[in-house]
Amino acid sequence: MSVRVSKKLAIGIDIGGTNSVFGFVDHRGNISYRGAISTKRYKDINEYLNALAEAIEPLIEQVGGRDHIQGIGIGAPNGNYYNGAIEYAPNLPWKGFIPLADLVQSKLGIPAALTNDANAAAVGEMTYGSAIGMKHFIMITLGTGVGSGIVIDGKVVYGHDGFAGELGHTITIPGGRKHWSTGAEGSLETYASATGVRLTALEFLSKFPDKNSLLRNYNPEEIDSKVIYDCAVEGDELANNVFDYTGKVLGLALANFVMFSSPEAVVLFGGLMKAGDLITKPTKEAMEKHLLPIFQNKVKLLKSELKESDAAILGASALVWELK
Amino acid sequence: MSVRVSKKLAIGIDIGGTNSVFGFVDHRGNISYRGAISTKRYKDINEYLNALAEAIEPLIEQVGGRDHIQGIGIGAPNGNYYNGAIEYAPNLPWKGFIPLADLVQSKLGIPAALTNDANAAAVGEMTYGSAIGMKHFIMITLGTGVGSGIVIDGKVVYGHDGFAGELGHTITIPGGRKHWSTGAEGSLETYASATGVRLTALEFLSKFPDKNSLLRNYNPEEIDSKVIYDCAVEGDELANNVFDYTGKVLGLALANFVMFSSPEAVVLFGGLMKAGDLITKPTKEAMEKHLLPIFQNKVKLLKSELKESDAAILGASALVWELK
Repeated sequence: MSVRVSKKLAIGIDIGGTNSVFGFVDHRGNISYRGAISTKRYKDINEYLNALAEAIEPLIEQVGGRDHIQGIGIGAPNGNYYNGAIEYAPNLPWKGFIPLADLVQSKLGIPAALTNDANAAAVGEMTYGSAIGMKHFIMITLGTGVGSGIVIDGKVVYGHDGFAGELGHTITIPGGRKHWSTGAEGSLETYASATGVRLTALEFLSKFPDKNSLLRNYNPEEIDSKVIYDCAVEGDELANNVFDYTGKVLGLALANFVMFSSPEAVVLFGGLMKAGDLITKPTKEAMEKHLLPIFQNKVKLLKSELKESDAAILGASALVWELK
Repeated sequence: MSVRVSKKLAIGIDIGGTNSVFGFVDHRGNISYRGAISTKRYKDINEYLNALAEAIEPLIEQVGGRDHIQGIGIGAPNGNYYNGAIEYAPNLPWKGFIPLADLVQSKLGIPAALTNDANAAAVGEMTYGSAIGMKHFIMITLGTGVGSGIVIDGKVVYGHDGFAGELGHTITIPGGRKHWSTGAEGSLETYASATGVRLTALEFLSKFPDKNSLLRNYNPEEIDSKVIYDCAVEGDELANNVFDYTGKVLGLALANFVMFSSPEAVVLFGGLMKAGDLITKPTKEAMEKHLLPIFQNKVKLLKSELKESDAAILGASALVWELK
């Protein structure tokens, strides 16, 4: 891993539906310069590239010019590592097939690589976070949705077409809750995301109408994973049951993932992890329960060590150290 | 793949609970010499090794001596590729940790490698069968149980500890049928194996007591996957429903596996595949139904091209071409 001692910097760009954030990162994961531009304002990809170059180029000068930059890593929804393209991302302003890594590389004159955000998070965790030195782990991001990045033999699994690792869409409860966007029934994301936790709470409230709960002090539209967490911490039983249930479903799914690739660890990341033990304890219990004995008490369930606000930039930047 | 043009032979040994079969295989998968010894007769591993050497050594002389042998590949239940050991195999006469690859290598003076039978089948398929040239595929063996071997980037996935790829034990129907040996509820093997097909038939017969079926002409203990197949081919509705249901469960599981590693193909192998379209058609339909659109109509569902009687030997022998 001689690249890890590079004194050059990597630029990490995380493209979200609203904004694109970027940072200049050294090989230890320290972010020096940061910036952001709007994503959604630029309906035309060339205008977006112009805005990006305008924001980044002065900083490149600041650090001593292009020679001091190892490369650019980009994390983007529907990003395909193999061709460096964003393919049909529903939540971005640019439609169809956008060969963004090539476009950025031409525009800025610096080698660029791209992957989806969850894979970038896995590379970030392996490079700077709680998976340093691990050859086999699975990263699960528990945010509005559920994302995943799988590492086997020290490499992110991209599969035949670049789209491997859609674990949030695996069916955990066949015939279960219908996904708001894919229409699939019982996929992990419908339970183990912030959105899923909210739906579970609403379901429990209507299923047990006689059960007291602090959650009944809120309008249904106010109930989100933060409110449920606050109520759970206050000792509210129904709110606690919501996290228990979420952990049960997540742990079952994790057991299945473990029996696929036998990782050293599963690293959990994202907003839902603010619930701490409320979510990790039932998750761990359910995972162990559903594992074959040969896998039991072997697999670490870890919390990401990356600061959430930095993780997307770090993950994207980490792609650079893998560039040949 | 320069090793593929070797003129040397590989010895493949497949260790089953009853017998161990072996063959001398060229790089194209032609088996020249074959043999077998009892497994269960030798409670002591050293006696087993003596018997194996006695059976194999004359054949080695026959082909011109050790210089003509590239190596020995062994497929065994609970075989761990990393350390070449059989670890706590419940159905073999030798208990505990048996470093069989080392023992065979010392005994015969030829390099040896070992893996579990399902992983060996995957290597065999990649080397001689329907997955030649594929870098990403999943092999599922549908026999008495359900085994699996996963190939990513042209390599079998062994995971952190050597035990990756226990897909038959992933939970497909949470809270479902209890596994006869592991006790897990709803694991794939309880539905998609020959054993599972039999259980589904018995379940349907008692669940729909008024439904006519040719299967009612048999005693329950006579009903096995072969009988159910024969009745299904005769047009028996209940028997056909059994295969439909099996395919639905298997297809759901396959969709989940595809969303994990995005393979080019899933290769199906084993006794249950004798049912042909009766099993593959509903499997394919269910798989496509549960896949995210980006994976739909991309993944081939293939039948193994290895002759069932040869596959275990071929798979084990194929390990040899991977030996460094």
